[in-house]
Amino acid sequence: MDAIARLLRPDSVAVIGASADPTKMTGRPVGYLQKHGFAGAIYPVNPRAASIGELPCYPDVAALPEAPDVGLVLVGPERAEQAVRDLAARGTAAAIVLASGYGEASPDGARRQQALREAAGPMRLLGPNTIGLVNLTDGIMLSATGALEVGELPPGRISLVSQSGGILGSLLSRAADRGIGFAKLVSTGNEGDLDSADLVEHLVEDDATAVIAVYMEGLRRPDAFRRAAQRAAACGKPIVVFKVGRSESGARAASSHTGALAGADRMYDAFFRQLGVIRAETFADLLDIPGALACGRRAAGRRVAVLTSTGGAGTLVADACGLAGFEVPPPDAATVARLAALQEGGQAAADRNPVDVTLAGLQPTLFRTAIDALLDSPGYDALVTIVGSSALAQPDLVADAVVECQARSDKPVLAYVSPHAPHIVRLLNQRGIPAFAAPEACATVLEALQHRPAPDVAESADSRAVPEVALPDLPAGPLNEAESKALFARFGVPVTRESVAADAASAQAAAEALGGRVVLKVLSRRIAHKSDVGGVKVGVPAADIPAACATMLENLRRAGAPEPEGFLVQELVRGSAEVILGFHRDPQLGPAVLLGMGGVAAELFRDTAMRLLPLGRADAEAMLRELKSWPLLDGFRGAPRCDVAALVDAILAFAAMAEALGDRLVEAEINPVFVMPEGQGVRAVDGLAVLA
Amino acid sequence: MDAIARLLRPDSVAVIGASADPTKMTGRPVGYLQKHGFAGAIYPVNPRAASIGELPCYPDVAALPEAPDVGLVLVGPERAEQAVRDLAARGTAAAIVLASGYGEASPDGARRQQALREAAGPMRLLGPNTIGLVNLTDGIMLSATGALEVGELPPGRISLVSQSGGILGSLLSRAADRGIGFAKLVSTGNEGDLDSADLVEHLVEDDATAVIAVYMEGLRRPDAFRRAAQRAAACGKPIVVFKVGRSESGARAASSHTGALAGADRMYDAFFRQLGVIRAETFADLLDIPGALACGRRAAGRRVAVLTSTGGAGTLVADACGLAGFEVPPPDAATVARLAALQEGGQAAADRNPVDVTLAGLQPTLFRTAIDALLDSPGYDALVTIVGSSALAQPDLVADAVVECQARSDKPVLAYVSPHAPHIVRLLNQRGIPAFAAPEACATVLEALQHRPAPDVAESADSRAVPEVALPDLPAGPLNEAESKALFARFGVPVTRESVAADAASAQAAAEALGGRVVLKVLSRRIAHKSDVGGVKVGVPAADIPAACATMLENLRRAGAPEPEGFLVQELVRGSAEVILGFHRDPQLGPAVLLGMGGVAAELFRDTAMRLLPLGRADAEAMLRELKSWPLLDGFRGAPRCDVAALVDAILAFAAMAEALGDRLVEAEINPVFVMPEGQGVRAVDGLAVLA
Repeated sequence: MDAIARLLRPDSVAVIGASADPTKMTGRPVGYLQKHGFAGAIYPVNPRAASIGELPCYPDVAALPEAPDVGLVLVGPERAEQAVRDLAARGTAAAIVLASGYGEASPDGARRQQALREAAGPMRLLGPNTIGLVNLTDGIMLSATGALEVGELPPGRISLVSQSGGILGSLLSRAADRGIGFAKLVSTGNEGDLDSADLVEHLVEDDATAVIAVYMEGLRRPDAFRRAAQRAAACGKPIVVFKVGRSESGARAASSHTGALAGADRMYDAFFRQLGVIRAETFADLLDIPGALACGRRAAGRRVAVLTSTGGAGTLVADACGLAGFEVPPPDAATVARLAALQEGGQAAADRNPVDVTLAGLQPTLFRTAIDALLDSPGYDALVTIVGSSALAQPDLVADAVVECQARSDKPVLAYVSPHAPHIVRLLNQRGIPAFAAPEACATVLEALQHRPAPDVAESADSRAVPEVALPDLPAGPLNEAESKALFARFGVPVTRESVAADAASAQAAAEALGGRVVLKVLSRRIAHKSDVGGVKVGVPAADIPAACATMLENLRRAGAPEPEGFLVQELVRGSAEVILGFHRDPQLGPAVLLGMGGVAAELFRDTAMRLLPLGRADAEAMLRELKSWPLLDGFRGAPRCDVAALVDAILAFAAMAEALGDRLVEAEINPVFVMPEGQGVRAVDGLAVLA
Repeated sequence: MDAIARLLRPDSVAVIGASADPTKMTGRPVGYLQKHGFAGAIYPVNPRAASIGELPCYPDVAALPEAPDVGLVLVGPERAEQAVRDLAARGTAAAIVLASGYGEASPDGARRQQALREAAGPMRLLGPNTIGLVNLTDGIMLSATGALEVGELPPGRISLVSQSGGILGSLLSRAADRGIGFAKLVSTGNEGDLDSADLVEHLVEDDATAVIAVYMEGLRRPDAFRRAAQRAAACGKPIVVFKVGRSESGARAASSHTGALAGADRMYDAFFRQLGVIRAETFADLLDIPGALACGRRAAGRRVAVLTSTGGAGTLVADACGLAGFEVPPPDAATVARLAALQEGGQAAADRNPVDVTLAGLQPTLFRTAIDALLDSPGYDALVTIVGSSALAQPDLVADAVVECQARSDKPVLAYVSPHAPHIVRLLNQRGIPAFAAPEACATVLEALQHRPAPDVAESADSRAVPEVALPDLPAGPLNEAESKALFARFGVPVTRESVAADAASAQAAAEALGGRVVLKVLSRRIAHKSDVGGVKVGVPAADIPAACATMLENLRRAGAPEPEGFLVQELVRGSAEVILGFHRDPQLGPAVLLGMGGVAAELFRDTAMRLLPLGRADAEAMLRELKSWPLLDGFRGAPRCDVAALVDAILAFAAMAEALGDRLVEAEINPVFVMPEGQGVRAVDGLAVLA
């Protein structure tokens, strides 16, 4: 067993600083261990107590009868380091340090945290600034969270990794009320050693865990998290992440809370999407989505039946589903016939969805028949049943019917509970029917139930090869336009035909060789925006080149721009559309490619898509379709379709360049890439690169 | 007292079809009236019972000892009409009909509903298909909703108007759990007579009502609702609406639920915005927002202090606020000093926000001092306090502190409750501190607390005068471009200088008169898209006009287009930007003006704004700023600012035309309007109108 396995399922636990006073925070953990039935050895360590309850107390770690699997360190920061050192010396597998006042507090605290890490040596460390962990699979509580005061904590198939201990407690108590069970909950706190990626990696292999929920303030080792997520995708085990720090205020708060670095939130979006990780949008989603995924069912499509005995709530749910892009279609003819047979009173129409069974709702047999009819119908992929106030008195009648009918189908069945009725929500969840008090949650969860492990997660990891291109001794610093485009071209990005000319005469010769009108530019690694200083002229006939060169040099002088290296004479091309390809290095998540539609309006609408490296073909294709102005590439209003395949190749070539150059690439942008009609390719028209 | 007042506060109630069996739906209302302490006379009417409890039962309405203020009709649709007729004959003020099977069910049902309405005569009617009404101000329950089974229903300052009875029950039971009190709740059901607008109008004048919440499936009389909303704005009484039917599925469901017509949801958005009505985005918001508004406080700005004793939850709230566009700035120096004095341990930094008082959270005096410091600080407009698990055992300690400190300030104070703790949420709400279990709700509610009655609500109603323009005998049907623009111009929309020419020779003369190059178009009321048939040429010199005319006629013949009425010779203008002005008549909400930025990209991004008539200057200005591409008008990237004032005038002129023409206006669009640099005006370049 590795250290994390022993941390989560120890045979023996030393509780350093345990208090005999159960009202104190330090008095709780021993009691929690006992109350929830920990079967292993518990060793309280406290020089000022002889015993805690019936357990003998040890004056120090050295006095323990054996090396414990886990040391739960409750003492303050001034004594924690020594405790950790002592535990490591005894050969303890892992220590949990609850104290705060480390990296989250001050630079002094950060130094203390480093010292703590060093004191641990080969021993693994959870925390500091953690609330510990809760293993409900095996009934092992290594935590001081007040949520453990709750009477009954149902074990379940969701495991949680949370950087915040308070959030762990909040989710645990909220889930208990909802009848949602957890397998393991681990608060990683400041992540002085063990971090979210370590825990996710471990939980992917945990048989008791079917879904992994993560509360994230920042990610310390994105590569390790990526590997764990890829493994989870391969196992078909969904990961659901709620990440704070989406706003500047939140990022600042997160960083001062556990010392987590923020990184750009849009990058996290890209990161999660590429890994097939589901991102929870609201805090409630972090329970709702895993709770629904843990039922094990997935929806095969987007057609939802809504069965209600109370019209208003049915409308609410239908509207929420419709807003989220689901269909709520009327039943097919065979289903209408089955439903119509139910409505003896003949009041409600059977050809509508929501299916309103105001009468049947009070008669369990009719209710069952209606559920069966809807689940049997080939026209629906999922069912939402509405629980109205008629169920308040006898919730079991409803629950029995739904549970029984669900068993005869493999489609997901959800419940929306309209009145305030936590006992019904709890009952349904406990019996495997995801139940919600918010209509919008039904739609959110239906979306998550469409989720399949992303196929491109594997592809972007494995099947993509970085081309072997011999890189000459490229100089450090900015390349000029010709050098930049030569670099892009070497990796397979098509660029305009062009020649570098030292003077006006050779520029004219180059223009004659290209034929027709050309684009003339000054060539300079020191001028970032050539147009702004009058250094670009489009559509110049060869005959006019000398005069144009002279004017340009004069323009540069007037603008106080540096002397150029020469001129660039370029073929004149016209694209059907313009895009921008950029490279960005996120301080947290690493290198990324950014794609944007060109033009002023697209900039105003922030119409861009980004993906982290490595980039697979499916990623590049998805980026294009993500653009709101994608129709402009796809043959908008009868215009010819653009050469999308060539553009995808160019994006992949640009990404491959970024990977091959690694840390040497500081900056790169192609602006614009002209995209021609289908079959005619793309052309990088201008661009720059900066190397380290 | 008018009929609605008597309906809500009757001195006597006849319950038609009351059952002696309290387990039946028809057995509930008499019990509810008694249980909640109705002091007036209750007259059960049931030919098959001698008494219900201690109340004597009457065989029919004619046998009642007096004309009741209200008749609560519990019988089915087959007997309800007679009951209504009998009640009307006795002079009853209002009847409530609970039965369903009317307009929501079928065309037959719609006829039954009409007959019911006629049977009521001068008596007012609530329903059919209603769950009735609940008056908590006066303890009068005229409803069968199961929510009245709940032991204690706290009276409060929110009144609810709901088209759905199920939703009324749902909100009532949820609010009771949350400690949120209602004044009156009325379900209008199918609105056979009394509708949402009637009830809102009445509640605006109700002293016990401080906030009006509306659950809306569709609006039958938008003008009446508009008047009620304007009156509410004038009284400073906020209206919060949750409207379903935002999606096609939801609209269909709503329409089959209470027979409400949908109308375009974006139009409702515009309608509510113009009226200063707050639109609830989620169902939970329909309790959260009124609950917070009922506390009576408003935020003077967007700077939020977050006070927490549990870091993770503070981060959650700060992030949610940040995402919603609030600032969560660090405290000012004086406040830092006050906070630092609290932190004897010195662990947490006092210069951060969220303000983390992990220690002080356990010590009420320190907690109070921290709240006071933050409320006193000129740097904050509102405070969110986080309630952590440390408060679970002694919620009163926290509540006392927050309530006391709030009383010393006029800033809004909200609470976010992190663990599952409905008793704390309830306690805080009951004591006037809006409390929430969702971090996002804090941000939503803070936004609502910025709300002030819209100043333009009054303006758009009163100060705007429709110009008196003498309209000649305009023909019915489509106008050609010249006629359309002449019509726009008559109301003050600036149009291009132009002449109508019958033939090529007079077109050439017109071009010479205009000078320079011109735009030549065919003129036809039968060709909608002139460009598509080769009927437009831009930049034609006068000399080329005859040839261009000939080519155009040839183009039209080839395209199979009808013979034109002549030619239009137009000055050639260039705009800095192009916009589109359109007229639209919503089947529910009436005439509206639509503004869009021109160009392909703007169309892809659906960059449009709309407002219903009547339109005030503030509305027109807000429409422009609502466009995502507004920066293009406002001097984007150093470009000259466009003549926004002239564009606003043009929008108002276009709107005034639509008002003046009333039902005669079928269609109108100006596409494009060129907008020149500041001081140079705007010009309608092309357009069409269709008159009835």
